[in-house]
Amino acid sequence: MSSALVAPSVPVEELERRIGALQAALRDDGIAAALLVEATDLYYLAGTVQDAHLLVPADGPPALLVRRSLARAEAESGLAEIRPLRSLRDLRPALEAAGVGGERVGFELDVLPAARLRLYEDLLAPVQIADCSAILRRLRARKSTWEIERIERAAQMLDDVLRRAPEFLREGMAEVELLAALEHELRRSGHDGAVRTRGFNQEIHYGFVLAGPAAAVPGGADAAIVGPGLNAAVGKGSSRRPIEPGEPILVDLVGSWEGYLADETRTLVIGDLDDTWRERYEQTVRILDAVAAAAGPGVTGAALYALAVELAGDEPGFMGVEPVSFVGHGLGLQIDEPPFLARGHDQPLEEGHVFALEPKFALPDRGAVGIENTYVVQAGGVRPLTAAPDIVCRS
Amino acid sequence: MSSALVAPSVPVEELERRIGALQAALRDDGIAAALLVEATDLYYLAGTVQDAHLLVPADGPPALLVRRSLARAEAESGLAEIRPLRSLRDLRPALEAAGVGGERVGFELDVLPAARLRLYEDLLAPVQIADCSAILRRLRARKSTWEIERIERAAQMLDDVLRRAPEFLREGMAEVELLAALEHELRRSGHDGAVRTRGFNQEIHYGFVLAGPAAAVPGGADAAIVGPGLNAAVGKGSSRRPIEPGEPILVDLVGSWEGYLADETRTLVIGDLDDTWRERYEQTVRILDAVAAAAGPGVTGAALYALAVELAGDEPGFMGVEPVSFVGHGLGLQIDEPPFLARGHDQPLEEGHVFALEPKFALPDRGAVGIENTYVVQAGGVRPLTAAPDIVCRS
Repeated sequence: MSSALVAPSVPVEELERRIGALQAALRDDGIAAALLVEATDLYYLAGTVQDAHLLVPADGPPALLVRRSLARAEAESGLAEIRPLRSLRDLRPALEAAGVGGERVGFELDVLPAARLRLYEDLLAPVQIADCSAILRRLRARKSTWEIERIERAAQMLDDVLRRAPEFLREGMAEVELLAALEHELRRSGHDGAVRTRGFNQEIHYGFVLAGPAAAVPGGADAAIVGPGLNAAVGKGSSRRPIEPGEPILVDLVGSWEGYLADETRTLVIGDLDDTWRERYEQTVRILDAVAAAAGPGVTGAALYALAVELAGDEPGFMGVEPVSFVGHGLGLQIDEPPFLARGHDQPLEEGHVFALEPKFALPDRGAVGIENTYVVQAGGVRPLTAAPDIVCRS
Repeated sequence: MSSALVAPSVPVEELERRIGALQAALRDDGIAAALLVEATDLYYLAGTVQDAHLLVPADGPPALLVRRSLARAEAESGLAEIRPLRSLRDLRPALEAAGVGGERVGFELDVLPAARLRLYEDLLAPVQIADCSAILRRLRARKSTWEIERIERAAQMLDDVLRRAPEFLREGMAEVELLAALEHELRRSGHDGAVRTRGFNQEIHYGFVLAGPAAAVPGGADAAIVGPGLNAAVGKGSSRRPIEPGEPILVDLVGSWEGYLADETRTLVIGDLDDTWRERYEQTVRILDAVAAAAGPGVTGAALYALAVELAGDEPGFMGVEPVSFVGHGLGLQIDEPPFLARGHDQPLEEGHVFALEPKFALPDRGAVGIENTYVVQAGGVRPLTAAPDIVCRS
């Protein structure tokens, strides 16, 4: 492709290491090959989000089968074997050419539309369709140095915008007006303009600003603090309610750099918080510090969640008016990756895991306070990647 | 729910009419009930996007079975029967209570994750899982007056921002910088901040600004003009390339009001377009006018696409450097709804259909020009909903 506007992305050695790890996991699970189509998985393993099927046999070289645009996939991807895919009917011959037939082939069943599953079952029988999404999520959770550098860029963007957030805050302005200003600053700082999620019906854009009672409006999103949103069709996030002095203003934003995300929350206030709010806020900081200090390789997400709950004690509203059973979540190319610091998540943290830790308290009809940082797990503990100043009061 | 921040949304009479139409279609297709979970379908039929299953028997009253938040679903939805759903295991008893068992039940198989399909198959056997997504898409394509009013609000927001776009345009600014400014203006005008898509891996935010050669970069998105994007992880949209005088600047934006969308494109230029670009641009305006004049109830999307291709004649680059086979698409709560003005789409347009018509020409390595308006189909023809001024030159 002649355009200088499209260039190679993920380094070849990153792709080779990731594909090697996937192949080892496929062999462990008795899966003959993976056939992958979801955008972030394609970017992770092939370095492009062009419309394609990535065929990864458990043994042998991978092939990127591209529907559109072939020229662009060739320009972006570091894979050696990139071919056109003219029809889904060509998938079976491609599998056979890779030595796969009548065996288990893994697909991303956590995100693949059901109608597509039925189509693949028809086209590929007697191949059995297995779910390799758990493998992919586990592999993607362990970030390389190259990936962590990108998450750090996303984190620095957040730090900078959160540090400057008070400059945009004025009494009586709508939550969404402050959010719009912060979104604009993020975009001007190089934010990708997109935040990807994996969960069905989940969506997030830049995050939210929620002040006073708006932060106490519950909702169906997988989050402690949901908010009313502009209307029932949006169903979450910032509202048009004016921000008033003395009420906690929760600013929860997602940074993005080359597809990689960081997540950070700060509590702002015009004037001062009253004693109740200040106590609850300081408690979230203590929980954050204690959980971060306890985290590290070998510690489970469930243990860290249990610690947070213990430190929250008998205070109501920990993790929401209708509480969720987590205090943190992994993130990378998507905002809802493993590890989950949540009830029932007994997998130990590993070096290279990246997670956001977000203790928050909500009081019915009154609002919410909290804090959130993004961390990387490394030998002996964790290292914070976000570092905006603590609570900000503006007179 | 006590909060004044959450209020009833879609009027009860709208919901009743829509559910009645769905029930008639289910009976026609021999489907005993629909069990729906996708956010825009829930909003369309229940007036809320809370985490819920909407059970619509072919005969009898619908029930909204809510996982989270029940209080909020009750405050937003105009349905009479709203109950908690504590576990997916309670779906079978709910179906039985509605008189449905061992029959065909419709799900949204176009968007439902495959792993969920397998889970429902296990939980509900011997119920057969049918695909009712085509029914939903057909029903949702016919907009009511109430819906068209919201699309008009989204269109007015676009008109206003596109009219003011030249104020933000400066020589040498990056495409993404102009886009960021326009996104900010849309957000300040009340844009929902979200644009929903139905297609797998499809995503769109506010749209794009693409100038000169960037507009000629092909890609895998379902669009004539794709663009390089900020990086390969984003994979489409605006780049950091500076905008130069004389090159066509394509500004394609999506407005949003209470979940409803409108789509509009205008071509801008600093200085003037050369004769080649001006001719191609004027040709897109002629195609737009001719196709809009030919459109109306009973005309097929395929016929309108064929007309556009005929008017494009032998000129290369109609609908992209790697051309797509459509010239327009329906839109409403999602950007990729029927009707499609596309090859093979032989369904006739109906009153209440809303579509965006977007003839565009691209020249390899040089750029693209085009225009796009959103229309509603009414007796005898179509009515444009977007109306920003034609091509804008800024000296």
